[in-house]
Amino acid sequence: MKRIDSTPKNDGFRMPAEYEPQSRVYMLWPERPDNWRDGGKPAQKSFAAVAKAISQFVPVTMGVNQAQYQNARAILDPSIQVVEMSSNDSWIRDCGPTFVKNDATGEIRGVDWEFNAWGGLVDGLYFPWDQDALVAQKVCELAGVDSYKTEGFVLEGGSIHVDGEGTVLTTEMCLLSEGRNPDLSRDEIERILADYLNISKVIWVKDGIDPEETNGHIDDVACFVAPGEVACIYTDDPEDPFYSVAQESYAFLCEQTDAKGRKLKVHKLCMPKKPVTIKGDFAIDSVEGTLPREDGEICIASYMNFLITTGGVIVPQYGDENDALAVEQIQAMFPNHKAVGVMTREVVYGGGNIHCITQQQPA
Amino acid sequence: MKRIDSTPKNDGFRMPAEYEPQSRVYMLWPERPDNWRDGGKPAQKSFAAVAKAISQFVPVTMGVNQAQYQNARAILDPSIQVVEMSSNDSWIRDCGPTFVKNDATGEIRGVDWEFNAWGGLVDGLYFPWDQDALVAQKVCELAGVDSYKTEGFVLEGGSIHVDGEGTVLTTEMCLLSEGRNPDLSRDEIERILADYLNISKVIWVKDGIDPEETNGHIDDVACFVAPGEVACIYTDDPEDPFYSVAQESYAFLCEQTDAKGRKLKVHKLCMPKKPVTIKGDFAIDSVEGTLPREDGEICIASYMNFLITTGGVIVPQYGDENDALAVEQIQAMFPNHKAVGVMTREVVYGGGNIHCITQQQPA
Repeated sequence: MKRIDSTPKNDGFRMPAEYEPQSRVYMLWPERPDNWRDGGKPAQKSFAAVAKAISQFVPVTMGVNQAQYQNARAILDPSIQVVEMSSNDSWIRDCGPTFVKNDATGEIRGVDWEFNAWGGLVDGLYFPWDQDALVAQKVCELAGVDSYKTEGFVLEGGSIHVDGEGTVLTTEMCLLSEGRNPDLSRDEIERILADYLNISKVIWVKDGIDPEETNGHIDDVACFVAPGEVACIYTDDPEDPFYSVAQESYAFLCEQTDAKGRKLKVHKLCMPKKPVTIKGDFAIDSVEGTLPREDGEICIASYMNFLITTGGVIVPQYGDENDALAVEQIQAMFPNHKAVGVMTREVVYGGGNIHCITQQQPA
Repeated sequence: MKRIDSTPKNDGFRMPAEYEPQSRVYMLWPERPDNWRDGGKPAQKSFAAVAKAISQFVPVTMGVNQAQYQNARAILDPSIQVVEMSSNDSWIRDCGPTFVKNDATGEIRGVDWEFNAWGGLVDGLYFPWDQDALVAQKVCELAGVDSYKTEGFVLEGGSIHVDGEGTVLTTEMCLLSEGRNPDLSRDEIERILADYLNISKVIWVKDGIDPEETNGHIDDVACFVAPGEVACIYTDDPEDPFYSVAQESYAFLCEQTDAKGRKLKVHKLCMPKKPVTIKGDFAIDSVEGTLPREDGEICIASYMNFLITTGGVIVPQYGDENDALAVEQIQAMFPNHKAVGVMTREVVYGGGNIHCITQQQPA
């Protein structure tokens, strides 16, 4: 497949919203023992459960490092396509391509953003990230689509959400961080987003809930659920570790209008009742520079990190009192989808959740 | 995708002939420096030329080891799909799946034969072959088809040719060799071929032309070109290194009938006028146990090692006086195909040719 030396906007392509029809969802298999506890075995079961839940709605492809190929094939449901694909870790939302679509021709292409492990040598989460950096191109080859490379412009898929009608939602904490594109102004970043997503308005939420990890990706805070409508995390509990970000984001979004001039309707999405903490007796390889995962540590657990797919919404569950409420609230936002909860404590222990470990290809 | 615990014959599947319609051709990228001269760089150019020639007729997928991914993507024509796939070397005819088809439903499945590098610990060509052994399953996953595993039964795709109407052509030298299935009798092997290819007659040519390498694969000696018709290598020159095998095979095939009782029509295919020898000043890594490739060494160069694909036949060329004659003879055998010559001296230096480095998926 080819690299296209142009921009999606120039060629009449736009990024569809996640709630538009999809043809496939891609994932990457977790294994690194310095991030996933107990050699990644508990996480692998969770990823398999997520893949199976998605595969009720659309086909799923799992990319796996060479050494884990047979194990992944054995654990995953036979309906999942298992392909070899090297990665440094399993966050395909962030290292995978952002697919764009030309509505006139139906053609799909990929945007292959520069990936630097959430901050590169400034505050990135691991080194090297050489294999992650090739994932977007490899997914485009598998999908049989040409791609655009944003030479030098760093972005992760988890830091943006679009409505498919000209608006992108992101955070200042992430996109203006020192480890991404420190030489670009806010205006320059807006222009690049306009060129590659074909949007005309950027809504800048201030902060995310994980400054130390992704520098505050939007996909733990808010997302579009329909044109003119967003969901936002919300809690009244001042003891909640994410209380202030939730309150501020909700209040901010209630005042915003989208690219078409609509004032946003904002749906509240609950947080876990009690902070989700890492539990149990387990082992993580000690490697200099990676984030420790310790017993009792508070996890970045948001119900917002769901995946919308064709006919279904796959929702994180933590074994928390609010699990059912979260599914119920999300079901109410998506009357034409089936909201399905999947227990993903093991995914959150590794630093993300269902949205972070999936990447959808539009139909 | 699933493993099917049955046999193709039992489920109504048969191996189509190579001249039946195809949907895709798979290849593997060459790199090992103890087999391919000068770090595989000349061979990589040849493989790219073969891939491009095939892609005029059907889509081509190239499987590439992790470290060579970017280089392969840069060298190959953009129309070629490049996917990550580990292998020990690049002979996908032999380690890849044999595809079978159910004519009633149109469903395709794969047969994943046991692979042991052409003789395992008896007289195999390298160790280990662990990644080659996974190629068939990985290709089936890419193709999205279920597969059969012939637990314990060793076979390479280059050791069989079928007419799609009940007949398989093979050699005693290979299938009865000590390094394949020494505990199985000829009758037992025939029964397994019947089960997995859905054939009712085996035509046993005695010898191949490369006893030291593949133990005499049929695909350097003869193949079906149509139901009831085979091509066979032929030379009148007693100085030709493959004179006696060519003479004996031709005489033998002229006396054979196929599964439908038709006496075979045998087309003569010329050999290179002069033995093809390895030429030039080059380097191959010295590794114990691999075959040396030395200046002046006679290569196993047969024009028979062509690939039939939909609408085209891709024919090896050596820079020999008989190159044009070979293309002309093959063109005459395939009046509805376009015979295309590709210079593949570098492929033959590594021990095979176009048929050995390709595997077709039926439409």
